[in-house]
Amino acid sequence: MKVLFVAGDPKPERWTQPIQELLPEAEIVTWAPNGDPVHADYAIVWRPPAELFTREPHLKAIFNLGAGVDGLMSLPELPADLTLVRLEDAGMSVQMAEHVVHQLLEISRNMQVYRAQQAQHQWQLHRPIKRSEWPIGVMGMGQIGARVASTLASLDYQVNGWARSEHSLAGVTTFAGPDGLTPFLQASRVLVNTLPLTDDTRDLINYDLLSQLQPDSVVINVGRGEHLVEDDLLKALDDGRVARASLDVFRQEPLPADHPFWQHPNIIVTPHISARSLRESTLEQITAKIRAHAQGETITGVVDRSRGY
Amino acid sequence: MKVLFVAGDPKPERWTQPIQELLPEAEIVTWAPNGDPVHADYAIVWRPPAELFTREPHLKAIFNLGAGVDGLMSLPELPADLTLVRLEDAGMSVQMAEHVVHQLLEISRNMQVYRAQQAQHQWQLHRPIKRSEWPIGVMGMGQIGARVASTLASLDYQVNGWARSEHSLAGVTTFAGPDGLTPFLQASRVLVNTLPLTDDTRDLINYDLLSQLQPDSVVINVGRGEHLVEDDLLKALDDGRVARASLDVFRQEPLPADHPFWQHPNIIVTPHISARSLRESTLEQITAKIRAHAQGETITGVVDRSRGY
Repeated sequence: MKVLFVAGDPKPERWTQPIQELLPEAEIVTWAPNGDPVHADYAIVWRPPAELFTREPHLKAIFNLGAGVDGLMSLPELPADLTLVRLEDAGMSVQMAEHVVHQLLEISRNMQVYRAQQAQHQWQLHRPIKRSEWPIGVMGMGQIGARVASTLASLDYQVNGWARSEHSLAGVTTFAGPDGLTPFLQASRVLVNTLPLTDDTRDLINYDLLSQLQPDSVVINVGRGEHLVEDDLLKALDDGRVARASLDVFRQEPLPADHPFWQHPNIIVTPHISARSLRESTLEQITAKIRAHAQGETITGVVDRSRGY
Repeated sequence: MKVLFVAGDPKPERWTQPIQELLPEAEIVTWAPNGDPVHADYAIVWRPPAELFTREPHLKAIFNLGAGVDGLMSLPELPADLTLVRLEDAGMSVQMAEHVVHQLLEISRNMQVYRAQQAQHQWQLHRPIKRSEWPIGVMGMGQIGARVASTLASLDYQVNGWARSEHSLAGVTTFAGPDGLTPFLQASRVLVNTLPLTDDTRDLINYDLLSQLQPDSVVINVGRGEHLVEDDLLKALDDGRVARASLDVFRQEPLPADHPFWQHPNIIVTPHISARSLRESTLEQITAKIRAHAQGETITGVVDRSRGY
């Protein structure tokens, strides 16, 4: 069995060495640009070149080094019947959950005011928040969205969840599909986006959607930049429909230095750090799935090409 | 039944009005400095003057508007047999839990670096944290400590708990008493203090204790300022035994403007805001207990004068 590693890491041995240790029965090959075909059975990829699919036509499955497969799905050369496997969790959902709690408190408790006071040696309390004034709507009820929603519910927030299809989650009021969207938004002040990026969800967070949230709303985007119509967010912030935003993902990453988000007083910009897959647990998961797939077993995380994730 | 409200609020009607609504059977009287005795049955107090106990000798119980009764206990005029009732939770433990998560991430994820980068329009990722490198020790296993510990455990942190007596808590490794302290500290990198202030716990967090934590340790104090020997923390920060601290409580509050904590680069100062009792739930709890006590029922939260909390 040959496993091809295809990711633009300048030190690919940081990945291929543990892969080899975890999968001693396989031959591990690092992708070489302009190289020859190696007749790989499996590929472990992050943003692979389209050339992969023409050079390696015998792939049985490819394993993405991230949860989002929107980049892969958009490659026109991707064979329609090739099995795509997304990374499942790998420590990411819990990081996302704690990041959302952090950003929520940054905003709801106005923590920047206390930092400014510290710089001035100033002791002043501000009004404590009431949880009843901060109902939260989590878009996406996959592993990440469910973890974020459950964490917030465990902290006694009123949490709503919305997804394409019906979900049930303890402590969370769930809404589904296009019909559920308006009631979901009207019940929420904080919008947390964890959706996968598909043709259905691209540009979903636009001015009309933002206008349906409760007053003084807050947007926390940890999904994908393409979910959000950036000009619509700026407009909603400017006219006061949205009070503040915390953005970790952007249509163009790195966010260009002249982008208006950087210096907007009511936007927190973080450089796509809310959750990062940890190499160790990522590779344990992927190598276990490669072994299982090679032995004809069923594996989880296979992308449904019709839904797009 | 007469209930005396004794707290230095410039607008006491913000309290007495809802108390009257919740307890229509009682006569509610606001404490007047230099006033006459009113022969109160119960008092609801926050930092009452010692005069209360001489002027009102017929009190059946006093209800504290906070969880910590160290201030009350230190009043020499306090009758030895007067029933003291502390505030239980009233929305505070969950606020404390989320504050600790916020402060932990501030430090563990170096969020101030991302804020500085935003100011510079700079996109740069830093090494993600590994949970295994951030074991947390929570001192105090009361309602607040247990909630803090459980929240951190639900976020997949390795959590240790220490208290005076044995406790058992799902997902938390517990230690008890003086013998348990060293193993507890040695297993922890982050120290979160939620202890009640008693003669046993005053000055407990000193240089020797701090030196037993794991390297690059972090101190988060949301208990009482008197738990921490302030000069010892400064010494431990200066010699690198402690990396960073987040302090919400201080020996003197407001923290004096010339105190070295304000401008220490590795100390976050917040003005005792980690958790605040919410008036509504506080008064619902206290009035229900007054009614129960007047009817001869057993109530919870009665201070054990021998333990001091």
